[in-house]
Amino acid sequence: MAAVAVPETGDVDLRHHGDSEVGDGLADFAVNVRAGTPPAWLAERLRASLGGLAAYPDPRPARRAVARRHGRAPGEVLLTAGAAEAFVLLARVLEPRRAVVVHPQFTEPEAALRAAGHAVERVVLGKDFTLDTAAVPADADLVVIGNPTNPTSVLHPADAVAALARPGRTVVVDEAFMDCVPGEPETLATRLPAGIAVIRSLTKTWGLAGLRAGYLLADPRLVARLAEAQPLWAVSTPALVAIEACCEPEAVAEAEAWAVELAAERDRLAAELANRGLYVVPEARASFLCLRVPDALGIRALLRQRGYAVRRGDTFPGLGTDWLRIAVRDRASNDALLEVLGELGI
Amino acid sequence: MAAVAVPETGDVDLRHHGDSEVGDGLADFAVNVRAGTPPAWLAERLRASLGGLAAYPDPRPARRAVARRHGRAPGEVLLTAGAAEAFVLLARVLEPRRAVVVHPQFTEPEAALRAAGHAVERVVLGKDFTLDTAAVPADADLVVIGNPTNPTSVLHPADAVAALARPGRTVVVDEAFMDCVPGEPETLATRLPAGIAVIRSLTKTWGLAGLRAGYLLADPRLVARLAEAQPLWAVSTPALVAIEACCEPEAVAEAEAWAVELAAERDRLAAELANRGLYVVPEARASFLCLRVPDALGIRALLRQRGYAVRRGDTFPGLGTDWLRIAVRDRASNDALLEVLGELGI
Repeated sequence: MAAVAVPETGDVDLRHHGDSEVGDGLADFAVNVRAGTPPAWLAERLRASLGGLAAYPDPRPARRAVARRHGRAPGEVLLTAGAAEAFVLLARVLEPRRAVVVHPQFTEPEAALRAAGHAVERVVLGKDFTLDTAAVPADADLVVIGNPTNPTSVLHPADAVAALARPGRTVVVDEAFMDCVPGEPETLATRLPAGIAVIRSLTKTWGLAGLRAGYLLADPRLVARLAEAQPLWAVSTPALVAIEACCEPEAVAEAEAWAVELAAERDRLAAELANRGLYVVPEARASFLCLRVPDALGIRALLRQRGYAVRRGDTFPGLGTDWLRIAVRDRASNDALLEVLGELGI
Repeated sequence: MAAVAVPETGDVDLRHHGDSEVGDGLADFAVNVRAGTPPAWLAERLRASLGGLAAYPDPRPARRAVARRHGRAPGEVLLTAGAAEAFVLLARVLEPRRAVVVHPQFTEPEAALRAAGHAVERVVLGKDFTLDTAAVPADADLVVIGNPTNPTSVLHPADAVAALARPGRTVVVDEAFMDCVPGEPETLATRLPAGIAVIRSLTKTWGLAGLRAGYLLADPRLVARLAEAQPLWAVSTPALVAIEACCEPEAVAEAEAWAVELAAERDRLAAELANRGLYVVPEARASFLCLRVPDALGIRALLRQRGYAVRRGDTFPGLGTDWLRIAVRDRASNDALLEVLGELGI
């Protein structure tokens, strides 16, 4: 199956997310946030930041820290209240004539574009969800792609993503999970080619989903336009403290060590599932696995009965009712899930 | 001088705010945030909230708490990342043919409207900045007004503000400082007449400027439209915890007691300044005073030399270079400021 362009549809709930699948004491394999986070040193920095809440937030130190982290200039950095705000700002500021979202992927970029009144075309990737740049219409002036991709866990080559750029087009690369990839060989945050905007998040690696902390890297002119559309004091002081802290070399090294561990455990879990005859999207590089299993919604319901929440795949355009996304946890938790799957005949 | 409608101009820096006037160890009479905040009980609740940061924010308990606080339905409540986000959402969602901002007032509503591409007309209030509803053009379909008003400290009667409503018009009432007024007799948050949207903030009374916590009350249809334009998970978990906590009856009672104390000290300070021959905008009801003094910018510069930051008035449309805004602090701090003013011959 080759990549195909499909017309916009409202066929799935783009606003369904893993966080609505958890709760009720279920073991969480639905939300892609690292367990046991934030770490104690970071929690302590956040606690200390509460002493300064009476003052309005000052984003300058965090902006400089992000710039240093990626070897860019502060003017190329926009701090945002999570990656979700970056999608909304882009949707509001850009005026695409032909907006294309490469699917399957995180659904908020498309939802934000639609909420801003833009038509959205979907390019659904084919076999193993590898990037086929030729499938993107030549006259698309906005292209949104995830790397590594949620929910498929596929990491596209940086050169292939960069090849999407061309005059008059903005390519938005959602790198919310890039820090799951040891060494980040395919990031565009440090290269930042013309026409590319990179979105990053602290949410997953640092366990800060509740804090709303992220950032965007792009040409200073685009950053300035987005900043103009952003509410004043958009990022809270604790979120700024987190951004600054997580950009320090020690924190980057800690995330890197975790990514190496994660990769080994992910590959083991993927192999176990594949050994059971399941199709696991190959070359997974993020903190989750995407798998095809007959009657996935039924399996999901049975898992919930047994105390395990996994993410349904059918709300991702390009997947369907035979797909699940499973977060990679520590070895013991993963083994427990594998055992329960075995009891279900998988 | 009667109220007059003036054409839109870009004559002042609408994005200048008090927070840029402080720092460098200056005593802060420029920012209208209550000193000594947040209180210990609230800081403890915020510290506790950090334990749940790995999960995405759940706004439902805070929304219910706000609804209870004002005797409204949860569907009439939109939680926002500070009042500033509410202004941006309104500017993005509403499509006014004739937008009017009643000045002098907080400049962010006008800045947000302009950033969203809307023309803005200013109605500048006349003598003592009392509300003249007749000065608002009859065909204005969006009217923005502050109550009590920053920077004048004037509290308009609720009935006068409500009288601005009419079919086809949205009236946005910025009540960010309403909890400075004991008993809140002029709030529209509890009445919420048709066509009125009320914006509230926790920033000033609770010392949470760095946290980004506020909300809007309006017709459920308008709330739903604004929510659709809002980023996913727009309000952080600590901010949600703060909103919920500050809506509890004990917190409301604490704020009320502070407002009573504040009022007495504010009135004393106003009388002292008036006794020195200064024009202080009469009937001040918020946590600051607005005063006219020849060469206010020169006075401000001399005060900075002596370690005191006050807010310049000239960046507020309708004021000018003879105006200052002074936050009301505790008696000892206010006396120290009065003494320094005396040394400057005031």
